[in-house]
Amino acid sequence: MIEWKNLDTLSSFHELEKAERVNLVDAMSGEKGAERVKKYSVDGACGFTYNYAAKAVDDRILSILKKLAEEAQLSEKFEDLYNGDVVNTGEKRLVLHHLTRGQLGKTVMADGVDKRAFYLDQQKRIADFADKVHSGEITNAKGEKFTTVVQIGIGGSDLGPRAMYLALENWAKKQGCFHMEAKFISNVDPDDASQVLASTDVAHAIFILVSKSGTTLETLTNQAFVMDALKKEGLDPAKHMIAVTSETSPLAHSKDFLDAFYMDDYIGGRYSSTSAVGGAVLSLAFGPDVFARFLKGAAEEDEKSKEKDPLKNPAMLDALIGVYERNVLGYPSTAVLPYSQALIRFPAHLQQLDMESNGKSVNRFGERLSYVTGPVLFGEPGTNGQHSFYQLLHQGTNIVPLQFVGFKKSQLQNDVEIQGSTSQQKLCANVAAQIVAFACGKKDENTNKNFEGNRPSSILVGEEVNPETLGALLAHFENKVMFQGFLWNVNSFDQEGVQLGKTLAKKVLAGDTDGALSEYAKLLEI
Amino acid sequence: MIEWKNLDTLSSFHELEKAERVNLVDAMSGEKGAERVKKYSVDGACGFTYNYAAKAVDDRILSILKKLAEEAQLSEKFEDLYNGDVVNTGEKRLVLHHLTRGQLGKTVMADGVDKRAFYLDQQKRIADFADKVHSGEITNAKGEKFTTVVQIGIGGSDLGPRAMYLALENWAKKQGCFHMEAKFISNVDPDDASQVLASTDVAHAIFILVSKSGTTLETLTNQAFVMDALKKEGLDPAKHMIAVTSETSPLAHSKDFLDAFYMDDYIGGRYSSTSAVGGAVLSLAFGPDVFARFLKGAAEEDEKSKEKDPLKNPAMLDALIGVYERNVLGYPSTAVLPYSQALIRFPAHLQQLDMESNGKSVNRFGERLSYVTGPVLFGEPGTNGQHSFYQLLHQGTNIVPLQFVGFKKSQLQNDVEIQGSTSQQKLCANVAAQIVAFACGKKDENTNKNFEGNRPSSILVGEEVNPETLGALLAHFENKVMFQGFLWNVNSFDQEGVQLGKTLAKKVLAGDTDGALSEYAKLLEI
Repeated sequence: MIEWKNLDTLSSFHELEKAERVNLVDAMSGEKGAERVKKYSVDGACGFTYNYAAKAVDDRILSILKKLAEEAQLSEKFEDLYNGDVVNTGEKRLVLHHLTRGQLGKTVMADGVDKRAFYLDQQKRIADFADKVHSGEITNAKGEKFTTVVQIGIGGSDLGPRAMYLALENWAKKQGCFHMEAKFISNVDPDDASQVLASTDVAHAIFILVSKSGTTLETLTNQAFVMDALKKEGLDPAKHMIAVTSETSPLAHSKDFLDAFYMDDYIGGRYSSTSAVGGAVLSLAFGPDVFARFLKGAAEEDEKSKEKDPLKNPAMLDALIGVYERNVLGYPSTAVLPYSQALIRFPAHLQQLDMESNGKSVNRFGERLSYVTGPVLFGEPGTNGQHSFYQLLHQGTNIVPLQFVGFKKSQLQNDVEIQGSTSQQKLCANVAAQIVAFACGKKDENTNKNFEGNRPSSILVGEEVNPETLGALLAHFENKVMFQGFLWNVNSFDQEGVQLGKTLAKKVLAGDTDGALSEYAKLLEI
Repeated sequence: MIEWKNLDTLSSFHELEKAERVNLVDAMSGEKGAERVKKYSVDGACGFTYNYAAKAVDDRILSILKKLAEEAQLSEKFEDLYNGDVVNTGEKRLVLHHLTRGQLGKTVMADGVDKRAFYLDQQKRIADFADKVHSGEITNAKGEKFTTVVQIGIGGSDLGPRAMYLALENWAKKQGCFHMEAKFISNVDPDDASQVLASTDVAHAIFILVSKSGTTLETLTNQAFVMDALKKEGLDPAKHMIAVTSETSPLAHSKDFLDAFYMDDYIGGRYSSTSAVGGAVLSLAFGPDVFARFLKGAAEEDEKSKEKDPLKNPAMLDALIGVYERNVLGYPSTAVLPYSQALIRFPAHLQQLDMESNGKSVNRFGERLSYVTGPVLFGEPGTNGQHSFYQLLHQGTNIVPLQFVGFKKSQLQNDVEIQGSTSQQKLCANVAAQIVAFACGKKDENTNKNFEGNRPSSILVGEEVNPETLGALLAHFENKVMFQGFLWNVNSFDQEGVQLGKTLAKKVLAGDTDGALSEYAKLLEI
């Protein structure tokens, strides 16, 4: 029997509060430190290792975290979720993004269909469509091949797919499976669509309009922007545009599109990279096989996440440690630092995934919480970040827990050896060095050069960035965020906090303003 | 007489702590709110308005902030800085980036020369060089024009120049002053250089190697990477590469470069966009006139920053309010949210500028501080952010103070009208709506749809993103960070916190490791 309880009603949480803190400087120094690195490590999916030696935990704390996982029924809640319970209680919806990449449990029926079969069917339809575009069976009106794909979407219809595209773009070029360049239009700022269109051969471009509801202001505005550009070139927009939407949206089954592919209300925008939202653009850009491999990686991590013992479940352990850092140690923000240029926009995607899912002040029953929930999340790739905000991370007055991601091999395997090491070795040496520098610090009599250490981090180490590892990495963070939502007892799958701004913006555009809003409208000369 | 005192030794700071807090929901509602928006506004440089109506201040608090500015001698310290005092005490250096764009005070002599004349001379040399490249007087070995410029640099040699380039790229294309595409290589990850080189016609590319010290690991590694690529094409690297460095660096006066342009130790990396570091790439990309206009905008804001009364000095007021939020209200992070796609990487630059400058735990005398200093800073352009992390900003358990930036006109002036409004109007309506939504909130019996409000923000409103306004915006934040450094009594111009990681990385590469570091090296298979 599942019980949804607030974190501070769990006895293991109070045990955690009382547990003696770990001094990382001490724990990570000398041979003890070496032992920790060997011991505090768990295998993830697709060759990943999650190493948490430099987190402020010890056997005692880990045993309490394990109790907390049991008491909060993390595995049972995940099971309920993938078996089709209404976990998104606010919107009274199932939460089915895992089904886009695998059948984790029972057959889930909704809207009168087997949802796994529904998602598979959409994947197949997308694959067929992409194959026909690549083979030249589907072309523009002149019978010429499409050479570019442009995704029009915002938020989850933009950040995830864009981050995944950028992560695999150069890999696909190297592998010889790069079919089409992808571009993205998201912002309602007209400069966004203008600049993308100015650099795009629209006569040979296929546009994907992505909006689950079919009512997103930015996306419909940018659709009109693009249609305008196509018409100016004497082209029929209906021959250049496909839709990804829900079957109940105004965009579904419309003659305005060459074809349409469907998702549904059980896939939140920020969890939609493995649905048709990511599927259409990634399959067109790299081919359906690459997208299938990406799904396979995610499915493999989802299976890992079913493991009940957090010491064998990286996503769950990561979630538990994060809650310990947030609610016991009191750290208000966290940074994700991938040592891979391919993952340049991965932190921006995680920023939405994490902050939109768990940036909540009430529990799933609408009761105000008396503890903090989701942290501020930010990040940039290393080593770039080292020359930017790491100063504050090392010597600032607040401690920021860190999540490193590293890969043994570079993605393109094109390297030079300088001063006895390759660039890839330098990259990896840097991330190893940072972990130890943050944890152990270094005493110096010149206080300006003194490093206090005791700054916790973990690292996910993979072989290289490829479709499988990318899928696994994405699923790791999706499942981590889900487990944290369970721990905080919030609904991680709605986003009521975005509504008020939308309502007020409509008032401004309708001229229906007074007070401060009216004055801001004047200031901006709207 | 200047006295460098800790913030918590100033009587006005304690007065500030005791002052009654402002309830923004109340203050920003109804006609009172409208009056605040009209009243709490100050003109900045180049047509900017800084509006702080939605910050948690009132006349009483503003009067104390004014006292704090006087007691902390903000104007006098700025005066000393631009007149050539050794304000960077840790490294015993002058701080002269303001001189790259104007003479704010006395003639500053250092290294036996008038530094303003030195920076002007470098600008002129760069302008001449860029003109010759554009006219075809300087070409590749075959006498063909260069078509692309590639900046090799990291941190301040990358983030600022890259953000400025992206901010003006489309503007320059529209204005007809776009000379060359610019690209950037920064990360030591070999995938970074590989991907840039793979998409670059190196035979027609000119590379700018940027490193003040001439010893930056990433930059020298990427130089070797690029030289390798040039040699493979049978090209002479010395005919394709220029350097931007200090005159004392190993890169200066070298035959390996077509030419070299100089900065010096008085320009910190994160303050170098207006020096040769930004000058070379921006002048080559857009022409020297555009770079001169950018400097003019920055110089105009620097003049504004000399104003002693913070109510007439946007950068100083912004700094004071930020310290109030950080040290009295206790907010640990802050977001910068530009409603302009052109400013897509501006927050990433500010992240370095702010976090590297003021992420310090000791004062300028090396004494440990008993109060917090620089916050975590992050941001993405609106309206994109609205569909991402704004959920947490509206309904999360921590309050994050916000800094909006908005423009009355779009940059490209290419727009469509849909449902009675242009995209630019929608963009501006959204930022106006967000400010009011954050400040006032909205009561709802359904607690999941309830907005508590009381979330402070300010907005900088400009006409459009062009070279002058970009320069002014950059200088606003540079000067804000400087004033905050004065208030916190930290040295904002060194970055000792980046050293330990570098040292340990070298140990890993030399195989000179033990303990945890050795195990991490194994884990990453270095």
